[in-house]
Amino acid sequence: MIKKLTVIGTGLIGGSLIRALRDVDAVEHVTGCARKTKTLDTALKLGIIDSGETNPAKAVIDADIVVIATPVGSIKSILSLISDSLKPGAIVSDVGSVKEAVVNDVIELYGVMPDWFIPAHPVAGTEKSGIEASFHTLFNKCQVVLTPVEETDPNKLAVIEKMWQKTGAIVSTMTVEDHDEILAATSHLPHVIAYSLVNQLTNMDKSDLVFKLAAGGFKDLTRIASSDPTMWRDICLGNRSKILDLIKSYKENLSTIESYIENNDEDKLFSLFKSAKSSRDINFE
Amino acid sequence: MIKKLTVIGTGLIGGSLIRALRDVDAVEHVTGCARKTKTLDTALKLGIIDSGETNPAKAVIDADIVVIATPVGSIKSILSLISDSLKPGAIVSDVGSVKEAVVNDVIELYGVMPDWFIPAHPVAGTEKSGIEASFHTLFNKCQVVLTPVEETDPNKLAVIEKMWQKTGAIVSTMTVEDHDEILAATSHLPHVIAYSLVNQLTNMDKSDLVFKLAAGGFKDLTRIASSDPTMWRDICLGNRSKILDLIKSYKENLSTIESYIENNDEDKLFSLFKSAKSSRDINFE
Repeated sequence: MIKKLTVIGTGLIGGSLIRALRDVDAVEHVTGCARKTKTLDTALKLGIIDSGETNPAKAVIDADIVVIATPVGSIKSILSLISDSLKPGAIVSDVGSVKEAVVNDVIELYGVMPDWFIPAHPVAGTEKSGIEASFHTLFNKCQVVLTPVEETDPNKLAVIEKMWQKTGAIVSTMTVEDHDEILAATSHLPHVIAYSLVNQLTNMDKSDLVFKLAAGGFKDLTRIASSDPTMWRDICLGNRSKILDLIKSYKENLSTIESYIENNDEDKLFSLFKSAKSSRDINFE
Repeated sequence: MIKKLTVIGTGLIGGSLIRALRDVDAVEHVTGCARKTKTLDTALKLGIIDSGETNPAKAVIDADIVVIATPVGSIKSILSLISDSLKPGAIVSDVGSVKEAVVNDVIELYGVMPDWFIPAHPVAGTEKSGIEASFHTLFNKCQVVLTPVEETDPNKLAVIEKMWQKTGAIVSTMTVEDHDEILAATSHLPHVIAYSLVNQLTNMDKSDLVFKLAAGGFKDLTRIASSDPTMWRDICLGNRSKILDLIKSYKENLSTIESYIENNDEDKLFSLFKSAKSSRDINFE
């Protein structure tokens, strides 16, 4: 049982984490921290948090675990605000979709990686944002990746691992490097792709007709383009080199298809589509 | 009431059309035509068709309406097989996702566009294929686009319009050119994008980990990469120039995002993501 949990950033992820832990009675007291009083009022009214605080330094007082669930670009400044208020033995973790940038920010701030900061990433979410969009089963059967570094205290790592397991998630550990490389492919590149497609179609001459005739496939493909732009700006800049590599090779892949279409190469086009279909069917059906 | 309907290609679209028409008692007798006897046996067993025939020339005898629901690359050869067996006054239509290539094929075959061929496209589907995947509500509230040409008989056009309306679809007419331009954007480019992404990730070094960590967004984005490769090869080649134009400008769009990330341009990246989000939210929520 966690005695006091503080969640900074009570949005979709932060809110869902609290709901999931409450659902299995894994936490005694939850303090939520948000910039807007309105968010905290909603969280209090929904029974998600026990107390609310707009000042991070005050919110973390006496907390055993602090989870920073804000866009990754803001983690460093939040850490600098709360450092002096953390009680001895407190564990701080995050939920960011990039890990190297977060680890580097933390090291930059303290000169060394503190053993109590556990870099974590629940690979879950929807295109919705905010506390109202949170729900207690969001992490059920989802992957949560922890990326401890050399300095990480294994006991503190185990506490965070156990916390996430209680939400129903499958927890694994991975190097920072592997995490960022894989997430660039499975999540960051797809978001860039979706934002780019919606952008292109919006700027077309007949964009009203375009959206009228957009069927299910298009809606599904672009669902993630409704994600929070601040969060995704931070992720793209936080995992810059890996995302740039993948955009580059993605454009090359498109050029390959382009050349098959240009050259009327039925066989190569068919075989590329067929192998993509097989791969997706094997991996997801 | 349609007295006799023949559907050549009893797959997802053909099967769903028949089911929808049966559901509102809009057809008396349905003959299904497929290459494999097994498909016809399934369709008979499911009560979708009244009779089955592997020979298209025989299948269309006495039919009032013939719907060719096969990949667009095969429409011309099917038409050449059935032409002599059509009864006077019979109407033939298709369901292809490209219209110019189909119209050109028909003109090439007959030297002129016959007034009884109605180019049509129900903008609906799932990533599944085959008669078992068909269902009677597939077209409910979906757009069906008819692209009549100068020679098209307006009475015959009206018959096909009415047939699709009975499935619950919203029917509109459009020029062949407009249709192909818009569908290239809303459907053909997205399929190329999805196939290309799955292909790229499959060929990555850590592709097992990649697919393990793929979350909902990736699954949604790549759902259409499970679509039938023959169908999509034909569509890509059938709407070649428009798709090539869009792939080109899509790559330019990606390059713009690439440059924002490269230059650490927070503001431009944020504003591009934000406007894409707004556009999608307005159009689909």
